[in-house]
Amino acid sequence: MARQLSRWAICCLRAAAPGLDWGRGTGCELSCASFGRIMRPDDANIAGNVHGGTILKMIEEAGAIISTRHCNSQAGEPCVAALARVERTDFLSPMCIGEVANVSAEITYTSRHSVEVQVNVMSENILTGAKKLTNKATLWYVPLSLKNVNKVLEVPPMQYARKEQEDEGKKRYEEQKLDRLETKQRNGDLMLPVINPDRQTKEPHTVGYSQSSLIHLVGPSDCTLLGFVHGGVTMKLMDEVAGMGAARHCKTNIVTASVDAINFHEKIKKGCVITVSGRMTFTSNKSMEIEVFVDADPFVDEPRERYRAVSAFFTYVSLSKEGKPLPVPQLLTETEDEKRRFEEGKGRYLQTKAKRQAQMQQAAQQ
Amino acid sequence: MARQLSRWAICCLRAAAPGLDWGRGTGCELSCASFGRIMRPDDANIAGNVHGGTILKMIEEAGAIISTRHCNSQAGEPCVAALARVERTDFLSPMCIGEVANVSAEITYTSRHSVEVQVNVMSENILTGAKKLTNKATLWYVPLSLKNVNKVLEVPPMQYARKEQEDEGKKRYEEQKLDRLETKQRNGDLMLPVINPDRQTKEPHTVGYSQSSLIHLVGPSDCTLLGFVHGGVTMKLMDEVAGMGAARHCKTNIVTASVDAINFHEKIKKGCVITVSGRMTFTSNKSMEIEVFVDADPFVDEPRERYRAVSAFFTYVSLSKEGKPLPVPQLLTETEDEKRRFEEGKGRYLQTKAKRQAQMQQAAQQ
Amino acid sequence: MARQLSRWAICCLRAAAPGLDWGRGTGCELSCASFGRIMRPDDANIAGNVHGGTILKMIEEAGAIISTRHCNSQAGEPCVAALARVERTDFLSPMCIGEVANVSAEITYTSRHSVEVQVNVMSENILTGAKKLTNKATLWYVPLSLKNVNKVLEVPPMQYARKEQEDEGKKRYEEQKLDRLETKQRNGDLMLPVINPDRQTKEPHTVGYSQSSLIHLVGPSDCTLLGFVHGGVTMKLMDEVAGMGAARHCKTNIVTASVDAINFHEKIKKGCVITVSGRMTFTSNKSMEIEVFVDADPFVDEPRERYRAVSAFFTYVSLSKEGKPLPVPQLLTETEDEKRRFEEGKGRYLQTKAKRQAQMQQAAQQ
Repeated sequence: MARQLSRWAICCLRAAAPGLDWGRGTGCELSCASFGRIMRPDDANIAGNVHGGTILKMIEEAGAIISTRHCNSQAGEPCVAALARVERTDFLSPMCIGEVANVSAEITYTSRHSVEVQVNVMSENILTGAKKLTNKATLWYVPLSLKNVNKVLEVPPMQYARKEQEDEGKKRYEEQKLDRLETKQRNGDLMLPVINPDRQTKEPHTVGYSQSSLIHLVGPSDCTLLGFVHGGVTMKLMDEVAGMGAARHCKTNIVTASVDAINFHEKIKKGCVITVSGRMTFTSNKSMEIEVFVDADPFVDEPRERYRAVSAFFTYVSLSKEGKPLPVPQLLTETEDEKRRFEEGKGRYLQTKAKRQAQMQQAAQQ
Repeated sequence: MARQLSRWAICCLRAAAPGLDWGRGTGCELSCASFGRIMRPDDANIAGNVHGGTILKMIEEAGAIISTRHCNSQAGEPCVAALARVERTDFLSPMCIGEVANVSAEITYTSRHSVEVQVNVMSENILTGAKKLTNKATLWYVPLSLKNVNKVLEVPPMQYARKEQEDEGKKRYEEQKLDRLETKQRNGDLMLPVINPDRQTKEPHTVGYSQSSLIHLVGPSDCTLLGFVHGGVTMKLMDEVAGMGAARHCKTNIVTASVDAINFHEKIKKGCVITVSGRMTFTSNKSMEIEVFVDADPFVDEPRERYRAVSAFFTYVSLSKEGKPLPVPQLLTETEDEKRRFEEGKGRYLQTKAKRQAQMQQAAQQ
Repeated sequence: MARQLSRWAICCLRAAAPGLDWGRGTGCELSCASFGRIMRPDDANIAGNVHGGTILKMIEEAGAIISTRHCNSQAGEPCVAALARVERTDFLSPMCIGEVANVSAEITYTSRHSVEVQVNVMSENILTGAKKLTNKATLWYVPLSLKNVNKVLEVPPMQYARKEQEDEGKKRYEEQKLDRLETKQRNGDLMLPVINPDRQTKEPHTVGYSQSSLIHLVGPSDCTLLGFVHGGVTMKLMDEVAGMGAARHCKTNIVTASVDAINFHEKIKKGCVITVSGRMTFTSNKSMEIEVFVDADPFVDEPRERYRAVSAFFTYVSLSKEGKPLPVPQLLTETEDEKRRFEEGKGRYLQTKAKRQAQMQQAAQQ
């Protein structure tokens, strides 16, 4: 703990008094960063709650900056860090228009070819001074060569304050690697995209009724220096589609409660058309789970077919005007597939609930 | 009358001969306006050509400003001018990233409840000083009360320099009124939107192969003070979809050549989801016609069903790297409907061609 | 110095280890803040240089956050800090697409009704690790009541580490107050806006030839919680117009070199149309001075006439492809007014030059 603290302290003190000699080689600017931004109407829904996707986009930008910085910290081939994975992320409290989002990022583990970044987001009401933790997110980045985007470079190893930090990081690395492999196989099993239901003919609260899609043409400002879509831009569109589905199902003010781990297996190039589709898979008493797919269509300058780039589960809750959680209408499943997906969703829901209760008991015992 | 008249005259004369001293305080800003904006990467396609939709959006913003200003120029209920119609617009020369778009707008006719605005766009290469006329557009606006959006207010009458101006304006007014009525009926004949073709199974150059859509969630910045989508935002999305279809058909650099008259019969409210779909209807040797539909889905806070808000025909041409028009692959029609639409498109094409030749002959004779 | 450092240090340590007790009442979160953002294609010109206006906008956002936070730090009427003035700002080195802009802000003085904020901007190339100081800016904010926008509230006094800090701050406060008063009078002398020059009829390098304007309809995302345009949004538009004028004059890659002090005397409300006009006033061998005016037209919901909201002088330089300053064509003045303004510009230029030389001599002597 002590050394970790002092590294942080030195980092910040150097920022405060750069004229003094704070020692070199602490590599501190490399491994921490913090940003803030005022939330505007365009960042929020009609009820004034900032979209989960806006927050995910800020988180990803902070992660991309800090990991690109780290991966270029030693002489060698220049590279850009590309998002490979975001771990499950909870939205702990809503953020509103006019509040300041304070985003801070820190590198917490490096493997040979990847970087783990921890990003915290605090919402700050600058009128009352009230601050709330909004998110704690963990992201994995991979450095791609600026000259050859298909070449993954080596990551300069980070220095750990304690041996246990490295061991815990390695454990997290192995776990996510396994999960990435599994979803890669699952993603290979292409599902037909969920498009444009003729809502008039559907019963309310069925899966078909709330199915939603967005189709977006990738522009220059959506892309990194390598000409590929920022992971954060993709997540923002995914959250928008999930939110459309949740709103169609509930007809109330809905907000993002959590996002399951998202793996980015396939890059999306500038000029592609991306179709983002969402279908509701499960409802508990007070939450909805929406599965979201991102398909990319490199429709002009490539011979390549349309392909599945990303998929993920978003969980939404419905809020009253006072911000209290409301009961959610149960999802009506019709086909065998819908029933199977509902059961799978229930499994994920119960697993998450059990994990949370275990954490709370652990915390209470300490 | 006299002063009002001279104000107009001076305004236009000043534009024509700005070196002379036209006096002060003529209040010219009321009835004409001009501005410029540098074209950025996000305004253009990969080849650097500014999207026709970007230009239509600037044209509409200029028109909305000048007509809202005019409609509020006399004491009375405050109002916002809403776009009712854009006349057929030709894109006379391409505009590029880095050039300045100079947009000037002028009110040319007022009826009891509508305002006609003429907008000219010049592209200016500020490095070489070269200027080209890009567009001449005519738009019709209707003043809606700020307090009650369903109430159309009266338009303060403009003063004409010559009686003929009023007569010609009245003729244009009657003509567009007739066309609006007709398309309202045609629009009532709802077509199924064109969504998400599974391109893998389609033959190149068929109608199905190049079908394209975009789906967009309407945000605060898309809307006017009244909370309805700016006509220009809608037209930009329409052009984007038409361009996607043209690029899929040709696999080359394509640019907007013209847009047929567009009527805005139905407002689109903030928070709606809009689906913009395009299908190719006709190809000549060097041009493609794409029909574009805009459907609005007020999916949360209204009991209203999804509805057709706008439709229009866009014509695109394909350009070589040197900017010369390329031959366009012929559209393969398969169904009876596709064949019928092709013939209708051919009719529009020949009519436009004949009109243009007549104008050129007339011009040559003068 | 010691206390100042320790305040900073505690601030940062608390951020690093919030569980520990770092003492209360250091007021630290209130008086420092730092932000970062990756520069995208839309933030820059064709040569890849980030617009000075983009940087001014980021600076102002950081200042608005920190001063609003400070002004609400004591129980009392909630308020939003509104930009009253930006001191003369130099752009010390260009920033490029793909670099990270690191913005840090600190409160340096408080009077009874205003807050002085110092903002530093560093550009960071995250590929090479190179960092450069881009700007040091000083801004003045005034707290306006959230309930009554015309009521200026009292500012909680800040704690100074040393008495001299307070004295120096007071001196800066008095100086800017005087300058504000003067420009208020000057601003009263409304000039006719620069409308629609017919550049074809103008000689290159005359004042008329490079005159430029922009018109912008104020949308929700341009505004603060009070519904008034962010000072940063206004400054970004001003820089855009000044840049268009400079590019028209030089036909080369031009970048913002400095901005003279800008006073914001009049608020601009949501829904207004703002016209931003620029005219060149002076050229030295390697720089151009452009005077920029912002006029607001509350054209819908207010009976108020169009009014001058802001004006300022921007200085631009012309750069070669290698980033070296190029000679600037001399401005051709034609009318008496133009000649007078040229002489006044020359006065400002010589004054600034003398001041800079004095500072360098002083620095050399130390």
